[in-house]
Amino acid sequence: MSYCLAVAVDDGMVFCSDSRTIEGVDRVSTYGKMFQFGSDGQRQFVILASGNLATAQATIARVKLDIQDNAARNLMRVATVQEAADYLGDLSLTEQQRHGESDGMEASFIIGGQIAGSDHEVALVYPQGNHITTSSDTLFLQIGESKYGKPILDRILAPNTSLDTCALCSLVSMDSTIRSNLTVGPPVELLVYRTNSLVLTGHRKFNADSSFLREISRAWDQRLKDAFHLMPALNWESDSIDPIADKSNIL
Amino acid sequence: MSYCLAVAVDDGMVFCSDSRTIEGVDRVSTYGKMFQFGSDGQRQFVILASGNLATAQATIARVKLDIQDNAARNLMRVATVQEAADYLGDLSLTEQQRHGESDGMEASFIIGGQIAGSDHEVALVYPQGNHITTSSDTLFLQIGESKYGKPILDRILAPNTSLDTCALCSLVSMDSTIRSNLTVGPPVELLVYRTNSLVLTGHRKFNADSSFLREISRAWDQRLKDAFHLMPALNWESDSIDPIADKSNIL
Repeated sequence: MSYCLAVAVDDGMVFCSDSRTIEGVDRVSTYGKMFQFGSDGQRQFVILASGNLATAQATIARVKLDIQDNAARNLMRVATVQEAADYLGDLSLTEQQRHGESDGMEASFIIGGQIAGSDHEVALVYPQGNHITTSSDTLFLQIGESKYGKPILDRILAPNTSLDTCALCSLVSMDSTIRSNLTVGPPVELLVYRTNSLVLTGHRKFNADSSFLREISRAWDQRLKDAFHLMPALNWESDSIDPIADKSNIL
Repeated sequence: MSYCLAVAVDDGMVFCSDSRTIEGVDRVSTYGKMFQFGSDGQRQFVILASGNLATAQATIARVKLDIQDNAARNLMRVATVQEAADYLGDLSLTEQQRHGESDGMEASFIIGGQIAGSDHEVALVYPQGNHITTSSDTLFLQIGESKYGKPILDRILAPNTSLDTCALCSLVSMDSTIRSNLTVGPPVELLVYRTNSLVLTGHRKFNADSSFLREISRAWDQRLKDAFHLMPALNWESDSIDPIADKSNIL
Protein backbone atom coordinates (compact mmCIF):
# COMPACT_ATOMS: atom_id res chain seq x y z
CA MET A 1 0.00 0.00 0.00
CA SER A 2 0.98 3.65 -0.22
CA TYR A 3 -0.30 6.95 0.98
CA CYS A 4 -0.14 10.03 -1.23
CA LEU A 5 -2.11 13.24 -1.00
CA ALA A 6 -2.33 16.60 -2.68
CA VAL A 7 -3.88 19.77 -1.35
CA ALA A 8 -5.01 22.70 -3.51
CA VAL A 9 -5.71 26.03 -1.80
CA ASP A 10 -5.77 29.63 -2.96
CA ASP A 11 -2.01 30.07 -2.43
CA GLY A 12 -0.95 26.94 -4.30
CA MET A 13 -0.55 23.22 -3.87
CA VAL A 14 1.10 20.79 -1.46
CA PHE A 15 2.03 17.22 -2.41
CA CYS A 16 3.05 14.54 0.06
CA SER A 17 3.92 10.86 -0.45
CA ASP A 18 5.43 7.94 1.40
CA SER A 19 7.94 5.52 -0.14
CA ARG A 20 7.06 2.05 1.06
CA THR A 21 6.20 -0.68 -1.42
CA ILE A 22 4.99 -4.00 -0.10
CA GLU A 23 4.47 -7.21 -2.00
CA GLY A 24 3.89 -9.65 0.83
CA VAL A 25 5.34 -8.98 4.25
CA ASP A 26 8.86 -10.08 3.33
CA ARG A 27 9.13 -8.04 0.17
CA VAL A 28 9.26 -4.53 1.48
CA SER A 29 11.03 -2.04 -0.73
CA THR A 30 11.53 1.69 -0.97
CA TYR A 31 10.46 3.59 -4.06
CA GLY A 32 9.77 7.27 -4.35
CA LYS A 33 6.22 7.94 -5.52
CA MET A 34 6.59 11.61 -6.40
CA PHE A 35 7.64 12.71 -9.87
CA GLN A 36 8.23 16.21 -11.16
CA PHE A 37 8.04 17.47 -14.71
CA GLY A 38 8.19 20.98 -15.97
CA SER A 39 9.77 23.88 -17.68
CA ASP A 40 10.54 26.82 -15.42
CA GLY A 41 8.34 29.83 -16.03
CA GLN A 42 6.06 27.91 -18.40
CA ARG A 43 4.48 24.88 -16.77
CA GLN A 44 5.01 22.53 -13.84
CA PHE A 45 3.51 19.14 -13.01
CA VAL A 46 3.81 16.83 -10.04
CA ILE A 47 2.60 13.21 -10.26
CA LEU A 48 2.03 10.92 -7.28
CA ALA A 49 1.62 7.18 -7.91
CA SER A 50 0.00 4.41 -5.90
CA GLY A 51 -1.01 0.83 -6.60
CA ASN A 52 0.75 -1.73 -8.77
CA LEU A 53 4.42 -0.72 -8.89
CA ALA A 54 5.06 -2.10 -12.36
CA THR A 55 2.08 -0.24 -13.82
CA ALA A 56 3.09 2.94 -12.02
CA GLN A 57 6.73 2.73 -13.12
CA ALA A 58 5.83 1.93 -16.73
CA THR A 59 3.36 4.81 -16.85
CA ILE A 60 5.87 7.30 -15.45
CA ALA A 61 8.56 5.99 -17.84
CA ARG A 62 6.12 6.58 -20.72
CA VAL A 63 5.44 10.14 -19.51
CA LYS A 64 9.20 10.82 -19.58
CA LEU A 65 9.74 9.19 -22.96
CA ASP A 66 6.86 11.11 -24.52
CA ILE A 67 8.47 14.37 -23.37
CA GLN A 68 11.91 13.32 -24.66
CA ASP A 69 10.44 12.22 -27.99
CA ASN A 70 8.27 15.35 -28.16
CA ALA A 71 5.32 13.07 -28.85
CA ALA A 72 2.05 14.53 -30.11
CA ARG A 73 0.62 14.05 -26.63
CA ASN A 74 3.01 14.89 -23.83
CA LEU A 75 3.01 16.98 -20.64
CA MET A 76 4.83 19.85 -22.35
CA ARG A 77 2.07 20.18 -24.94
CA VAL A 78 -1.18 19.63 -23.05
CA ALA A 79 -3.34 22.72 -22.75
CA THR A 80 -4.76 22.07 -19.27
CA VAL A 81 -4.11 20.01 -16.16
CA GLN A 82 -7.29 18.09 -16.92
CA GLU A 83 -5.94 17.20 -20.35
CA ALA A 84 -2.78 16.01 -18.60
CA ALA A 85 -4.94 13.85 -16.32
CA ASP A 86 -6.72 12.35 -19.34
CA TYR A 87 -3.38 11.60 -20.95
CA LEU A 88 -2.05 10.00 -17.76
CA GLY A 89 -5.22 7.92 -17.43
CA ASP A 90 -4.86 6.66 -21.00
CA LEU A 91 -1.22 5.67 -20.40
CA SER A 92 -2.15 3.85 -17.20
CA LEU A 93 -5.01 2.00 -18.86
CA THR A 94 -2.88 1.00 -21.84
CA GLU A 95 -0.21 -0.30 -19.49
CA GLN A 96 -2.75 -2.38 -17.53
CA GLN A 97 -4.29 -3.78 -20.71
CA ARG A 98 -0.90 -4.85 -22.06
CA HIS A 99 -0.84 -7.40 -19.26
CA GLY A 100 -4.21 -8.95 -20.02
CA GLU A 101 -6.29 -7.08 -17.47
CA SER A 102 -5.38 -9.52 -14.73
CA ASP A 103 -6.28 -8.54 -11.19
CA GLY A 104 -3.94 -6.37 -9.16
CA MET A 105 -2.54 -4.37 -12.08
CA GLU A 106 -4.41 -1.21 -11.12
CA ALA A 107 -2.59 2.00 -10.29
CA SER A 108 -3.97 5.35 -9.19
CA PHE A 109 -2.33 8.71 -9.73
CA ILE A 110 -2.63 12.25 -8.53
CA ILE A 111 -1.47 14.91 -10.95
CA GLY A 112 -1.26 18.55 -10.02
CA GLY A 113 0.22 21.44 -11.83
CA GLN A 114 -0.03 24.82 -13.41
CA ILE A 115 0.34 26.04 -16.95
CA ALA A 116 1.26 29.71 -17.44
CA GLY A 117 -1.93 31.76 -17.86
CA SER A 118 -4.16 29.22 -16.08
CA ASP A 119 -4.90 28.40 -12.47
CA HIS A 120 -3.15 25.57 -10.67
CA GLU A 121 -5.22 22.41 -10.45
CA VAL A 122 -5.07 18.90 -8.98
CA ALA A 123 -6.73 15.74 -10.34
CA LEU A 124 -7.00 12.15 -9.14
CA VAL A 125 -6.70 9.61 -11.95
CA TYR A 126 -8.53 6.33 -11.28
CA PRO A 127 -7.28 2.95 -12.52
CA GLN A 128 -10.08 3.11 -15.11
CA GLY A 129 -8.41 6.16 -16.62
CA ASN A 130 -11.03 8.75 -15.68
CA HIS A 131 -10.39 11.48 -13.13
CA ILE A 132 -11.84 13.93 -10.63
CA THR A 133 -10.44 17.29 -9.57
CA THR A 134 -10.32 19.31 -6.39
CA SER A 135 -12.85 22.09 -5.92
CA SER A 136 -13.52 24.89 -3.47
CA ASP A 137 -15.35 22.33 -1.31
CA THR A 138 -12.94 19.45 -1.88
CA LEU A 139 -9.49 20.80 -1.18
CA PHE A 140 -7.54 17.57 -1.07
CA LEU A 141 -7.30 14.28 -2.91
CA GLN A 142 -5.76 11.08 -1.58
CA ILE A 143 -4.68 7.77 -3.06
CA GLY A 144 -3.66 4.57 -1.27
CA GLU A 145 -4.18 4.11 2.44
CA SER A 146 -6.26 7.25 2.80
CA LYS A 147 -8.55 6.77 5.78
CA TYR A 148 -6.29 7.11 8.81
CA GLY A 149 -5.04 10.51 7.73
CA LYS A 150 -8.33 11.96 6.50
CA PRO A 151 -9.87 13.31 9.73
CA ILE A 152 -7.15 15.92 10.32
CA LEU A 153 -7.39 17.15 6.72
CA ASP A 154 -11.19 17.36 7.02
CA ARG A 155 -10.86 19.57 10.08
CA ILE A 156 -7.99 21.89 9.25
CA LEU A 157 -7.99 22.73 5.55
CA ALA A 158 -9.84 25.72 4.11
CA PRO A 159 -9.36 27.59 0.81
CA ASN A 160 -7.44 30.38 2.57
CA THR A 161 -5.17 28.07 4.60
CA SER A 162 -1.51 29.05 4.20
CA LEU A 163 0.84 26.75 2.31
CA ASP A 164 2.95 26.23 5.45
CA THR A 165 -0.14 25.10 7.35
CA CYS A 166 -1.17 22.84 4.46
CA ALA A 167 2.33 21.33 4.47
CA LEU A 168 2.26 20.76 8.22
CA CYS A 169 -1.24 19.29 8.02
CA SER A 170 -0.15 16.95 5.23
CA LEU A 171 2.81 15.76 7.30
CA VAL A 172 0.57 15.20 10.34
CA SER A 173 -1.85 13.25 8.12
CA MET A 174 1.10 11.18 6.84
CA ASP A 175 2.35 10.64 10.40
CA SER A 176 -1.05 9.33 11.55
CA THR A 177 -1.10 6.92 8.62
CA ILE A 178 2.45 5.67 9.17
CA ARG A 179 1.67 5.13 12.84
CA SER A 180 -1.50 3.12 12.22
CA ASN A 181 -0.50 1.19 9.10
CA LEU A 182 2.68 -0.79 8.54
CA THR A 183 2.42 -0.65 4.77
CA VAL A 184 3.07 3.09 4.71
CA GLY A 185 6.55 4.31 5.61
CA PRO A 186 9.36 6.81 5.07
CA PRO A 187 11.11 8.40 3.31
CA VAL A 188 8.37 11.00 3.15
CA GLU A 189 8.47 13.42 0.23
CA LEU A 190 6.88 16.84 0.42
CA LEU A 191 6.55 19.44 -2.27
CA VAL A 192 5.10 22.90 -1.83
CA TYR A 193 4.16 24.85 -4.95
CA ARG A 194 3.28 28.54 -4.74
CA THR A 195 0.78 29.51 -7.40
CA ASN A 196 2.11 31.47 -10.38
CA SER A 197 5.71 30.75 -9.37
CA LEU A 198 5.98 28.19 -12.19
CA VAL A 199 9.04 26.64 -10.57
CA LEU A 200 9.28 23.50 -8.42
CA THR A 201 11.79 24.45 -5.75
CA GLY A 202 9.94 23.38 -2.63
CA HIS A 203 10.73 19.65 -2.65
CA ARG A 204 11.90 17.95 0.55
CA LYS A 205 12.66 14.33 1.27
CA PHE A 206 12.63 13.18 4.89
CA ASN A 207 14.30 9.87 5.65
CA ALA A 208 13.32 7.58 8.51
CA ASP A 209 16.02 9.14 10.69
CA SER A 210 14.98 12.70 9.84
CA SER A 211 15.02 14.79 13.00
CA PHE A 212 12.31 16.99 11.51
CA LEU A 213 9.99 14.07 10.84
CA ARG A 214 10.62 12.71 14.33
CA GLU A 215 9.89 16.11 15.84
CA ILE A 216 6.60 16.39 13.91
CA SER A 217 5.65 12.92 15.08
CA ARG A 218 6.60 13.52 18.71
CA ALA A 219 5.01 16.98 18.86
CA TRP A 220 1.73 15.83 17.31
CA ASP A 221 1.55 12.79 19.56
CA GLN A 222 2.04 14.98 22.63
CA ARG A 223 -0.39 17.67 21.53
CA LEU A 224 -3.03 15.15 20.59
CA LYS A 225 -2.74 13.51 24.00
CA ASP A 226 -2.84 16.91 25.70
CA ALA A 227 -5.92 17.83 23.65
CA PHE A 228 -7.61 14.61 24.63
CA HIS A 229 -6.85 15.06 28.30
CA LEU A 230 -8.27 18.59 28.12
CA MET A 231 -11.63 17.24 26.96
CA PRO A 232 -14.52 18.00 29.31
CA ALA A 233 -15.29 15.22 31.76
CA LEU A 234 -18.00 12.78 30.82
CA ASN A 235 -21.29 14.34 31.78
CA TRP A 236 -23.82 12.09 30.24
CA GLU A 237 -26.14 12.05 33.21
CA SER A 238 -27.66 15.24 31.85
CA ASP A 239 -28.43 13.51 28.56
CA SER A 240 -31.66 11.75 27.90
CA ILE A 241 -31.29 8.04 28.36
CA ASP A 242 -33.58 5.73 26.49
CA PRO A 243 -34.71 3.30 29.17
CA ILE A 244 -36.30 0.96 26.66
CA ALA A 245 -33.19 0.64 24.55
CA ASP A 246 -31.28 0.20 27.77
CA LYS A 247 -32.98 -3.02 28.71
CA SER A 248 -34.61 -4.36 25.58
CA ASN A 249 -32.05 -6.98 24.81
CA ILE A 250 -31.32 -8.13 28.32
CA LEU A 251 -32.82 -11.54 28.78
CA MET B 1 -21.17 0.12 6.71
CA SER B 2 -21.00 0.36 10.50
CA TYR B 3 -18.48 1.19 13.11
CA CYS B 4 -18.31 -0.78 16.35
CA LEU B 5 -15.48 -1.09 18.82
CA ALA B 6 -14.74 -2.67 22.15
CA VAL B 7 -11.96 -1.82 24.57
CA ALA B 8 -10.67 -4.14 27.29
CA VAL B 9 -8.51 -2.65 30.04
CA ASP B 10 -7.69 -3.67 33.61
CA ASP B 11 -10.80 -1.97 35.02
CA GLY B 12 -13.28 -3.49 32.59
CA MET B 13 -14.67 -3.06 29.10
CA VAL B 14 -16.19 -0.32 26.96
CA PHE B 15 -18.41 -1.01 23.95
CA CYS B 16 -19.45 1.58 21.39
CA SER B 17 -21.51 1.26 18.20
CA ASP B 18 -23.24 3.42 15.63
CA SER B 19 -26.70 2.68 14.24
CA ARG B 20 -26.63 3.45 10.55
CA THR B 21 -27.40 0.75 8.01
CA ILE B 22 -26.96 1.51 4.34
CA GLU B 23 -28.03 -0.52 1.38
CA GLY B 24 -27.46 1.89 -1.45
CA VAL B 25 -27.54 5.62 -0.82
CA ASP B 26 -31.33 5.83 -0.76
CA ARG B 27 -31.89 2.97 1.65
CA VAL B 28 -30.52 4.35 4.85
CA SER B 29 -32.01 2.88 8.02
CA THR B 30 -31.37 2.92 11.71
CA TYR B 31 -30.71 -0.30 13.60
CA GLY B 32 -29.03 -0.69 16.95
CA LYS B 33 -25.97 -2.91 16.68
CA MET B 34 -25.43 -3.51 20.39
CA PHE B 35 -27.08 -6.44 22.16
CA GLN B 36 -26.91 -7.39 25.82
CA PHE B 37 -27.39 -10.80 27.39
CA GLY B 38 -26.83 -11.86 30.93
CA SER B 39 -27.86 -12.89 34.35
CA ASP B 40 -26.99 -10.42 37.09
CA GLY B 41 -24.24 -11.63 39.39
CA GLN B 42 -23.47 -14.63 37.20
CA ARG B 43 -22.50 -13.66 33.67
CA GLN B 44 -22.84 -10.78 31.23
CA PHE B 45 -22.27 -10.56 27.49
CA VAL B 46 -22.39 -7.71 24.99
CA ILE B 47 -22.47 -8.40 21.27
CA LEU B 48 -21.80 -5.81 18.55
CA ALA B 49 -22.74 -6.63 14.97
CA SER B 50 -21.55 -5.31 11.61
CA GLY B 51 -21.93 -6.41 8.00
CA ASN B 52 -24.97 -7.95 6.33
CA LEU B 53 -27.99 -6.88 8.35
CA ALA B 54 -30.04 -10.02 7.63
CA THR B 55 -27.19 -12.30 8.74
CA ALA B 56 -26.59 -10.20 11.85
CA GLN B 57 -30.28 -10.10 12.82
CA ALA B 58 -30.77 -13.81 12.23
CA THR B 59 -27.68 -14.62 14.28
CA ILE B 60 -28.77 -12.44 17.19
CA ALA B 61 -32.30 -13.90 17.01
CA ARG B 62 -30.77 -17.38 17.22
CA VAL B 63 -28.70 -16.36 20.26
CA LYS B 64 -31.91 -15.22 21.99
CA LEU B 65 -33.88 -18.30 21.00
CA ASP B 66 -31.15 -20.64 22.20
CA ILE B 67 -31.27 -18.96 25.60
CA GLN B 68 -35.08 -19.13 25.74
CA ASP B 69 -35.05 -22.77 24.69
CA ASN B 70 -32.19 -23.53 27.08
CA ALA B 71 -30.42 -25.19 24.15
CA ALA B 72 -27.37 -27.38 24.76
CA ARG B 73 -25.21 -24.53 23.47
CA ASN B 74 -26.29 -21.10 24.62
CA LEU B 75 -24.72 -18.03 26.21
CA MET B 76 -26.00 -18.99 29.68
CA ARG B 77 -24.15 -22.31 29.52
CA VAL B 78 -20.83 -21.55 27.83
CA ALA B 79 -17.82 -21.87 30.13
CA THR B 80 -15.72 -19.02 28.69
CA VAL B 81 -16.03 -15.93 26.53
CA GLN B 82 -13.97 -17.71 23.89
CA GLU B 83 -16.47 -20.56 23.85
CA ALA B 84 -19.18 -17.94 23.40
CA ALA B 85 -17.22 -16.51 20.46
CA ASP B 86 -16.96 -19.97 18.89
CA TYR B 87 -20.68 -20.46 19.32
CA LEU B 88 -21.45 -17.07 17.79
CA GLY B 89 -19.11 -17.82 14.87
CA ASP B 90 -20.88 -21.10 14.21
CA LEU B 91 -24.30 -19.41 14.23
CA SER B 92 -23.09 -16.72 11.84
CA LEU B 93 -21.54 -19.26 9.47
CA THR B 94 -24.67 -21.44 9.49
CA GLU B 95 -26.79 -18.40 8.72
CA GLN B 96 -24.55 -17.40 5.79
CA GLN B 97 -24.54 -20.94 4.38
CA ARG B 98 -28.34 -21.16 4.52
CA HIS B 99 -28.36 -18.56 1.78
CA GLY B 100 -26.04 -20.39 -0.58
CA GLU B 101 -22.83 -18.58 0.31
CA SER B 102 -23.58 -15.76 -2.08
CA ASP B 103 -21.42 -12.66 -1.84
CA GLY B 104 -22.26 -9.95 0.63
CA MET B 105 -23.77 -12.21 3.30
CA GLU B 106 -20.82 -11.82 5.65
CA ALA B 107 -21.23 -10.36 9.12
CA SER B 108 -18.62 -9.68 11.78
CA PHE B 109 -19.23 -9.56 15.50
CA ILE B 110 -17.53 -8.43 18.64
CA ILE B 111 -18.46 -10.29 21.79
CA GLY B 112 -17.25 -9.26 25.20
CA GLY B 113 -18.25 -10.41 28.60
CA GLN B 114 -17.44 -11.90 31.93
CA ILE B 115 -18.45 -15.12 33.63
CA ALA B 116 -18.28 -15.20 37.45
CA GLY B 117 -14.90 -16.54 38.52
CA SER B 118 -13.12 -15.64 35.25
CA ASP B 119 -11.65 -12.45 33.83
CA HIS B 120 -13.58 -10.26 31.42
CA GLU B 121 -12.63 -10.81 27.80
CA VAL B 122 -13.39 -9.45 24.32
CA ALA B 123 -13.27 -11.33 21.02
CA LEU B 124 -13.78 -10.38 17.38
CA VAL B 125 -15.65 -13.03 15.39
CA TYR B 126 -14.81 -13.07 11.69
CA PRO B 127 -17.35 -13.93 8.96
CA GLN B 128 -15.52 -17.27 8.65
CA GLY B 129 -16.54 -18.07 12.20
CA ASN B 130 -13.10 -17.97 13.80
CA HIS B 131 -12.07 -15.28 16.26
CA ILE B 132 -9.28 -13.30 17.88
CA THR B 133 -9.20 -11.75 21.35
CA THR B 134 -7.77 -8.64 22.89
CA SER B 135 -4.46 -8.91 24.76
CA SER B 136 -2.27 -6.72 26.95
CA ASP B 137 -0.79 -5.32 23.73
CA THR B 138 -4.03 -5.18 21.75
CA LEU B 139 -6.52 -3.38 23.92
CA PHE B 140 -9.25 -2.75 21.39
CA LEU B 141 -11.01 -4.52 18.55
CA GLN B 142 -13.01 -2.85 15.79
CA ILE B 143 -15.45 -3.99 13.12
CA GLY B 144 -16.83 -2.06 10.17
CA GLU B 145 -15.41 1.28 9.13
CA SER B 146 -12.44 1.05 11.48
CA LYS B 147 -9.65 3.15 10.02
CA TYR B 148 -10.72 6.76 10.63
CA GLY B 149 -11.11 6.19 14.35
CA LYS B 150 -8.04 4.03 14.92
CA PRO B 151 -5.29 6.66 15.38
CA ILE B 152 -6.77 8.14 18.57
CA LEU B 153 -7.23 4.68 20.10
CA ASP B 154 -3.64 3.77 19.17
CA ARG B 155 -2.37 6.83 20.99
CA ILE B 156 -4.49 7.01 24.13
CA LEU B 157 -5.32 3.52 25.38
CA ALA B 158 -3.14 1.65 27.87
CA PRO B 159 -3.97 -1.28 30.19
CA ASN B 160 -4.32 1.06 33.17
CA THR B 161 -6.49 3.65 31.37
CA SER B 162 -9.62 4.44 33.38
CA LEU B 163 -13.02 3.35 32.10
CA ASP B 164 -14.16 6.98 31.82
CA THR B 165 -11.16 7.77 29.65
CA CYS B 166 -11.78 4.65 27.54
CA ALA B 167 -15.40 5.72 27.10
CA LEU B 168 -14.42 9.24 26.08
CA CYS B 169 -11.75 7.90 23.72
CA SER B 170 -14.29 5.54 22.14
CA LEU B 171 -16.73 8.41 21.61
CA VAL B 172 -13.98 10.56 20.07
CA SER B 173 -13.05 7.64 17.80
CA MET B 174 -16.73 7.31 16.83
CA ASP B 175 -17.00 11.06 16.24
CA SER B 176 -13.98 11.04 13.89
CA THR B 177 -15.54 8.19 11.94
CA ILE B 178 -18.98 9.79 11.71
CA ARG B 179 -17.36 13.00 10.54
CA SER B 180 -15.29 11.37 7.79
CA ASN B 181 -17.71 8.68 6.61
CA LEU B 182 -21.36 9.08 5.69
CA THR B 183 -22.17 5.42 6.21
CA VAL B 184 -21.62 5.68 9.96
CA GLY B 185 -24.14 7.67 12.00
CA PRO B 186 -26.07 8.13 15.23
CA PRO B 187 -27.69 7.04 17.46
CA VAL B 188 -24.45 6.09 19.17
CA GLU B 189 -24.65 3.43 21.84
CA LEU B 190 -22.10 3.19 24.61
CA LEU B 191 -21.79 0.59 27.33
CA VAL B 192 -19.28 0.65 30.14
CA TYR B 193 -18.75 -2.56 32.11
CA ARG B 194 -16.74 -2.51 35.35
CA THR B 195 -14.96 -5.82 35.87
CA ASN B 196 -16.44 -8.16 38.48
CA SER B 197 -19.63 -6.10 38.70
CA LEU B 198 -21.50 -8.77 36.69
CA VAL B 199 -24.26 -6.30 35.88
CA LEU B 200 -24.81 -4.26 32.71
CA THR B 201 -26.01 -0.92 34.00
CA GLY B 202 -23.74 1.41 32.07
CA HIS B 203 -25.61 1.56 28.78
CA ARG B 204 -26.25 4.91 27.10
CA LYS B 205 -27.85 5.75 23.78
CA PHE B 206 -27.13 9.13 22.24
CA ASN B 207 -29.43 10.30 19.48
CA ALA B 208 -28.43 12.64 16.67
CA ASP B 209 -29.75 15.59 18.67
CA SER B 210 -27.96 14.55 21.87
CA SER B 211 -26.41 17.60 23.49
CA PHE B 212 -23.72 15.40 25.00
CA LEU B 213 -22.71 13.96 21.63
CA ARG B 214 -22.70 17.43 20.09
CA GLU B 215 -20.55 18.72 22.96
CA ILE B 216 -18.04 15.86 22.52
CA SER B 217 -17.90 16.59 18.80
CA ARG B 218 -17.52 20.33 19.22
CA ALA B 219 -14.97 20.06 22.03
CA TRP B 220 -12.82 17.55 20.20
CA ASP B 221 -12.93 19.56 16.99
CA GLN B 222 -11.83 22.67 18.84
CA ARG B 223 -9.12 20.94 20.84
CA LEU B 224 -7.76 19.17 17.80
CA LYS B 225 -7.56 22.46 15.92
CA ASP B 226 -5.93 24.12 18.93
CA ALA B 227 -3.45 21.25 19.15
CA PHE B 228 -2.65 21.58 15.48
CA HIS B 229 -2.14 25.31 15.70
CA LEU B 230 0.21 24.79 18.67
CA MET B 231 2.49 22.64 16.54
CA PRO B 232 6.02 24.00 16.16
CA ALA B 233 6.55 26.02 12.99
CA LEU B 234 7.97 24.23 9.99
CA ASN B 235 11.72 24.18 10.41
CA TRP B 236 12.87 21.88 7.71
CA GLU B 237 15.79 24.00 6.62
CA SER B 238 17.81 22.31 9.35
CA ASP B 239 17.03 18.91 7.89
CA SER B 240 19.17 17.22 5.33
CA ILE B 241 17.75 17.73 1.88
CA ASP B 242 18.55 15.18 -0.75
CA PRO B 243 19.62 17.31 -3.71
CA ILE B 244 19.57 14.36 -6.07
CA ALA B 245 16.01 13.37 -5.24
CA ASP B 246 15.12 17.02 -5.48
CA LYS B 247 15.93 17.25 -9.14
CA SER B 248 16.09 13.73 -10.49
CA ASN B 249 12.73 13.74 -12.16
CA ILE B 250 12.68 17.28 -13.44
CA LEU B 251 13.10 17.13 -17.15
